[in-house]
Amino acid sequence: MTLLSLLDYASVFVFALSGALVASRAQLDIFGFIFIASLTAVGGGTLRDIILNRDTVFWVANPGYIGLAALAAFLTFFTAHLLESRYRAILWLDACALAVAVPAGVAVALAMGQPPAIVIIMGIVTGCFGGLMRDVVCNEVPLVLRQGELYVTCALAGASVTLLVLYTGLPMSVALLGCAATTFALRAGSLRFGWRLPVYKAFPPRQ
Amino acid sequence: MTLLSLLDYASVFVFALSGALVASRAQLDIFGFIFIASLTAVGGGTLRDIILNRDTVFWVANPGYIGLAALAAFLTFFTAHLLESRYRAILWLDACALAVAVPAGVAVALAMGQPPAIVIIMGIVTGCFGGLMRDVVCNEVPLVLRQGELYVTCALAGASVTLLVLYTGLPMSVALLGCAATTFALRAGSLRFGWRLPVYKAFPPRQ
Amino acid sequence: MTLLSLLDYASVFVFALSGALVASRAQLDIFGFIFIASLTAVGGGTLRDIILNRDTVFWVANPGYIGLAALAAFLTFFTAHLLESRYRAILWLDACALAVAVPAGVAVALAMGQPPAIVIIMGIVTGCFGGLMRDVVCNEVPLVLRQGELYVTCALAGASVTLLVLYTGLPMSVALLGCAATTFALRAGSLRFGWRLPVYKAFPPRQ
Repeated sequence: MTLLSLLDYASVFVFALSGALVASRAQLDIFGFIFIASLTAVGGGTLRDIILNRDTVFWVANPGYIGLAALAAFLTFFTAHLLESRYRAILWLDACALAVAVPAGVAVALAMGQPPAIVIIMGIVTGCFGGLMRDVVCNEVPLVLRQGELYVTCALAGASVTLLVLYTGLPMSVALLGCAATTFALRAGSLRFGWRLPVYKAFPPRQ
Repeated sequence: MTLLSLLDYASVFVFALSGALVASRAQLDIFGFIFIASLTAVGGGTLRDIILNRDTVFWVANPGYIGLAALAAFLTFFTAHLLESRYRAILWLDACALAVAVPAGVAVALAMGQPPAIVIIMGIVTGCFGGLMRDVVCNEVPLVLRQGELYVTCALAGASVTLLVLYTGLPMSVALLGCAATTFALRAGSLRFGWRLPVYKAFPPRQ
Repeated sequence: MTLLSLLDYASVFVFALSGALVASRAQLDIFGFIFIASLTAVGGGTLRDIILNRDTVFWVANPGYIGLAALAAFLTFFTAHLLESRYRAILWLDACALAVAVPAGVAVALAMGQPPAIVIIMGIVTGCFGGLMRDVVCNEVPLVLRQGELYVTCALAGASVTLLVLYTGLPMSVALLGCAATTFALRAGSLRFGWRLPVYKAFPPRQ
C-alpha cells in the first residue's frame, strides 16, 4: 500500500495547489484557500470511496491528507504572486494531479477486487471529479468541458494502460507508473501541442 | 426485479441521450460525450443508492449500465446533427427519462421497505438529480429552475400515484406504470400546453 | 441526543428558509420552493452522514426533517413579499443556520468518537455545504466565495471552540452553545461591521 498512499498524497498535494490557485483568482482569504484546496484535493477520492462503499473514506481514516491540502493552500497564498500566469499554472498542476490521481483511483479499485470496467471508471472518477468540483464551485469553465482538449480521454487511456500492463504479468508498480505516464503524456500533449480528437462541432456537414 | 431493471435501463439510456445532446451543445469530443452522458444517466440513481446506503451502487453491481450510456453517447455523436432543434430534443428526452427514472427510484425504495415519505423522496431524487448534475456541470439553466414549468411537481405526483395505486391492492407493475404515465403526462402537458402552477412572482399583490 | 436533534431541527428549518428565499428570487412554484429548501436544509448533514458512513442518513431515519423544510418553504412562499430585502434576509438566515449547523455537525462526529481533526471538518462540512449546494444549483455566487467576508473561518472557529471548551471539562451543552455563539458572532460581525481577514488580492506587493 506504500506506493498507493504515495500516489494519494501526491494527488492531494498537487490538486490542492491547483485549487488554491483558483481560490487566488477568486481573491479569497487563507481559510477560503484551504477550503477550496481541500475540496479539490479530496473530492475525487471521496466520491470514489463513497461509490465503492469503502468502510472509511481515505481522509477520514487519515486526516493528514487534509493537513497536506492546507499546507499546499498556505504555500500558494504566499507565493502565487510570483507566478507569471496563474491560469497556465492551474492547467499544468491539474495535469500533474490528474496523472497521479488516476493511478491512485485504479489502485484502490484493483485492491478491492473490482472488475476491469469499474477499475477504469474509478480511475476516471478519482482523476476528474476533484477538479470538476473546484471549477463548478468557483464558476470556472470545467476543464472537462474545454473544447478541443483531451481530458477524460487521458484518464481513460491511463486507466486502460494499467490493466494492459497487468495482463502482461508485469508488477503493479510498473502498471501504475505506466498509467501516470500515459495520462500525463496525453494531457501535456494536448495542452502543449494541441493534440485533440474530432469534436462534435467539426463532425456534421451541416449544423 | 425484471420490471425494475427494465426501468433502470430505460432511464439510463434516455438520460444518456439527453446528456450527450448537452455535450453536443458544448462541442465536446466522443469521450466528453460519454462522460456527460454517463453522469446524467447514473447520477440520480447513484445518489439514491448512496443515500439509502445500498450495499452496492446499481452500476457498480452491473457496469453494463455505463456501457449502455456510452452506446447512447456514441449514437448521439453521429446522429445529433440530424435533429432540427437539439434543445427541444433535450427537453423531451429529459421528460421521457424523468418518467422512467421516478418509478425506478420508487421501486428501489419500496423493495427496501422504506416508509412512504422516503419512497416519494427517492422517486424525486432518482428522477431529478441526474439532469440537475448534467445542467450544473455544463452550465445550462437546470430544468428544475425553469420558471412556469412543472418539473419537481411531476416527479412528486408520479411517486404519489404509485403509493395510491398500491394501497388499492393493484399489483406493483400497474403502480409503476401509473407512476410513469402520470409523471410524463404532467411534464409533457407543461412543455406542450404550458401547464403550470402559480409561481412566486405571480403570487404577492405587490413585489 | 435531545440537544443534538434540536440543533438539527433548527438548522434544517433556518437553512430551508434561506433556500426558499433563493427559490423566490428564481421565481419558482411551491414545489420548486420545497425542492430548493430541502436541498439547502439537509445537504450539509447528508454529506456529513455519507462521509462518516453512518448507518442511516439523518432524514431517512426521520423524514420529519423534510416535512419541516417543506413547512419553511410553504411559509416563505406566502410571506417573502413582506420582506424589504430578500437578499439581506438570505444572508442573515444563512448566518443563523450556519451557527446551528456547525455544532450539529460537531456533535454527530463527537458522538461517533471521531478524532479532533474530523470533528472540526464535519462541523465545517455540515455548516457550509447545504448553502453551497443551494447557491451552485441556483447559480448564485456561493457565500463561501464572497470576497472580504468571513464564512469558512466562522465555522472553523466555532468547531474549534467546541473542542477547547470540552477539554476544560465543561459539559457538552456548554461546548455546543459556545460553538454556535462563536460561529454566529464572527459571521454577524463580518456582515455587519465588515470583519475580514486579508484576502489574496491585498497580499502580494504586486499582482
